[in-house]
Amino acid sequence: MTSTASAQMNSAPTVGLIGLGAMGLGMAQSLRRKGHVPRVYDVRGDVVQRFVADGGTACASPEEVAAGCDVLISVVVNAAQTEGVLFGERGAAAALPKGSVFVMCSTVDPGFSIALEARLAEFGILYLDAPISGGAARAARGEITMMTAGRPQAYGKAMPVLEAMAGKVYRLGDAAGPGSTVKIVNQLLAGVHIAAAAEAMALGIRAGVDPKQIYEVITHSAGNSWMFENRMPHVLDGDYTPLSAVDIFVKDLGLVLDTARASKFPLPLAATAHQMFSMASSAGHGREDDAAVIKIFPGIELPQKR
Amino acid sequence: MTSTASAQMNSAPTVGLIGLGAMGLGMAQSLRRKGHVPRVYDVRGDVVQRFVADGGTACASPEEVAAGCDVLISVVVNAAQTEGVLFGERGAAAALPKGSVFVMCSTVDPGFSIALEARLAEFGILYLDAPISGGAARAARGEITMMTAGRPQAYGKAMPVLEAMAGKVYRLGDAAGPGSTVKIVNQLLAGVHIAAAAEAMALGIRAGVDPKQIYEVITHSAGNSWMFENRMPHVLDGDYTPLSAVDIFVKDLGLVLDTARASKFPLPLAATAHQMFSMASSAGHGREDDAAVIKIFPGIELPQKR
Repeated sequence: MTSTASAQMNSAPTVGLIGLGAMGLGMAQSLRRKGHVPRVYDVRGDVVQRFVADGGTACASPEEVAAGCDVLISVVVNAAQTEGVLFGERGAAAALPKGSVFVMCSTVDPGFSIALEARLAEFGILYLDAPISGGAARAARGEITMMTAGRPQAYGKAMPVLEAMAGKVYRLGDAAGPGSTVKIVNQLLAGVHIAAAAEAMALGIRAGVDPKQIYEVITHSAGNSWMFENRMPHVLDGDYTPLSAVDIFVKDLGLVLDTARASKFPLPLAATAHQMFSMASSAGHGREDDAAVIKIFPGIELPQKR
Repeated sequence: MTSTASAQMNSAPTVGLIGLGAMGLGMAQSLRRKGHVPRVYDVRGDVVQRFVADGGTACASPEEVAAGCDVLISVVVNAAQTEGVLFGERGAAAALPKGSVFVMCSTVDPGFSIALEARLAEFGILYLDAPISGGAARAARGEITMMTAGRPQAYGKAMPVLEAMAGKVYRLGDAAGPGSTVKIVNQLLAGVHIAAAAEAMALGIRAGVDPKQIYEVITHSAGNSWMFENRMPHVLDGDYTPLSAVDIFVKDLGLVLDTARASKFPLPLAATAHQMFSMASSAGHGREDDAAVIKIFPGIELPQKR
C-alpha cells in the first residue's frame, strides 16, 4: 500500500475540469501549458471540441470526466450548478475515485461549501473550498488568485495542480468555509465600490466637472479603489461592452446578503448597492458592463462612445 | 506702473496663513523651509507663539495677517470659519491689498466657494478654490495634494506659493467651483470606502475568519481600496487613537449630502454611510478613529489592543 501510494504521488496527477467559461477555459489552458492533459466537460459541446483540438480529453458528462481523476476542478456559475455537476444525472460524485480531490471554484454561500465537504467525505472524496478571482485574462496566463481552505490531505494532492493555474494560492484554514467567506467579503467590497464609483462620478458630472479630470484626481487621492480605477474608464469612454455584467453583481451581492441573513447580520451598504444594481438591471442594463450602474442617476449627461 | 508691477512679480511674495491645525501647521512649516517668512494667525495664541519661535511673524487677528499680504492662505475647518476669517470682527477681507489672492483650502459646499469668489472680487481680491488632501505628515513634508480652480491672474500670483506646499496642484478650471466639487467627490468615496471596509471586515469576523487573513487577501484583490488598506490596520491592532475621527465623516458626508440636496440629486450610498458614522458617533465613538465605525456591528468580537 505504501509503495503504491508514493508511486501515485510521484507521477503527474490526472486532472479534470468542468465548466469552460471565461475563467474555466483559461484555467484549463494553463493546465495544458504546464504539461497536464486535462479531461474537460462543458454543457456546450462545441466549446469542449474547440478546446481539445489543441490537446486534452473531451468528455460527455461530469461522470465521464470524474472517472480516473485525481483532482477534479469545478468552475461552474453557482451552487445549483455545482450541485448538479456532483449529484445530478451522470454526476461526478459517484464516479470520482476514493481519495481524489474535488476543487470547488464557484462563488457560493460558505454554508453550502462547508456542507459539501461533509457530503463528499461520505463518498471518500477530499474537498477544497477554493473560490477564484482575477478575470479571464489572468486565468489564461495562469495567474488567478485562489482563496482556499480544506484539509491538509486535500492540499497534499491538489497543490501542484492549483499552482499550475494560480499566481497566488491563499490558504485560509484546515476545513471548508474561510475560502468562500473571504470571497464573499471581496464581492461585497467590489460591488459597493463599483456602485460608489458611479455615484461619486455622477455627482461630479452633475456639478459640471470634466469626468476625465475627476478620474485623474481621484485615482491619485485617498478616495481611490481598485474598482474605481478599473471601471470608470468604461464611463469615460461611454463603452459598456460587458467585461463583467450588471447582472453578475445583482447575483453576487444577492448572495452576500443571503449569507449574512442566515445569521441575521446587517449589511447596510451591500443592501443599498444591491438595490442600485437591481435598478440598473430593471431599467434594461443587466447585460451591459457593471459600470452601467451609473445610468440609474437621472439628470446627468454621460460621455458618449466615439 | 509696468516697472513697479514687474518688480513685485520678481520679489518673493508676502505670504499669510490662517489656521495652524494639523494641516495648516505643516503647510506653514513647508513655506518657511522654502524661504518664506509667513505671517500667521490662529485663535490659539500659544500655537502661534510656538510656530514663530523658529521663524515667521505672529499676528493677533485675520486683519493683521492680511495687511501687506500678496497671498493669504486659509486652512480653517469649514465654511462658517472661512466666513468669520474674512468678514467677521477684525476680518481679512477689508485689510487685504487689492490684487492679492485669497487661497481657500477648507472642504466646503462648491456653491459657497463660487459665491466667495464673487464677493471678494468686489473688494478687488483674487481667489483660488483650493481644497487640500494628504494628511498631517504629508503637509509637514510639503507634499499635500491641492484640488484647485480659479482665474489665471490668481494662479499667476499664487502658483509659486502653492508649489512650496504641495506635491501636486491639480488645476481644474478657470473659475471657482471644480476644486471644491472634486474634493466633495473624494470625501464621498473616502467615507463610503471606510464604512464598506468596516462592514466587510465585520462580516468576515462574524463568519469566524482571522481578520489578519482577510486583510492580506483583500489588499491583493479587486475589493481593495486606499481606505481599506489604510484604515483596517487600526481594527487589526484594536487601536482607535484618532488620526481622523468618526465625527469628521459625520461632518464631511453631511456636507456631501447638503451639496447634492441643493440640486435634489440622490446619493444612496453616501446617505447610508452617513447614517453608519452617525450611529457610531451617537454610540459614543465620535472622537475615536474613523475605523471605529466598525463598532456599530453587533455580535462580533473585535481584536483588542495589545
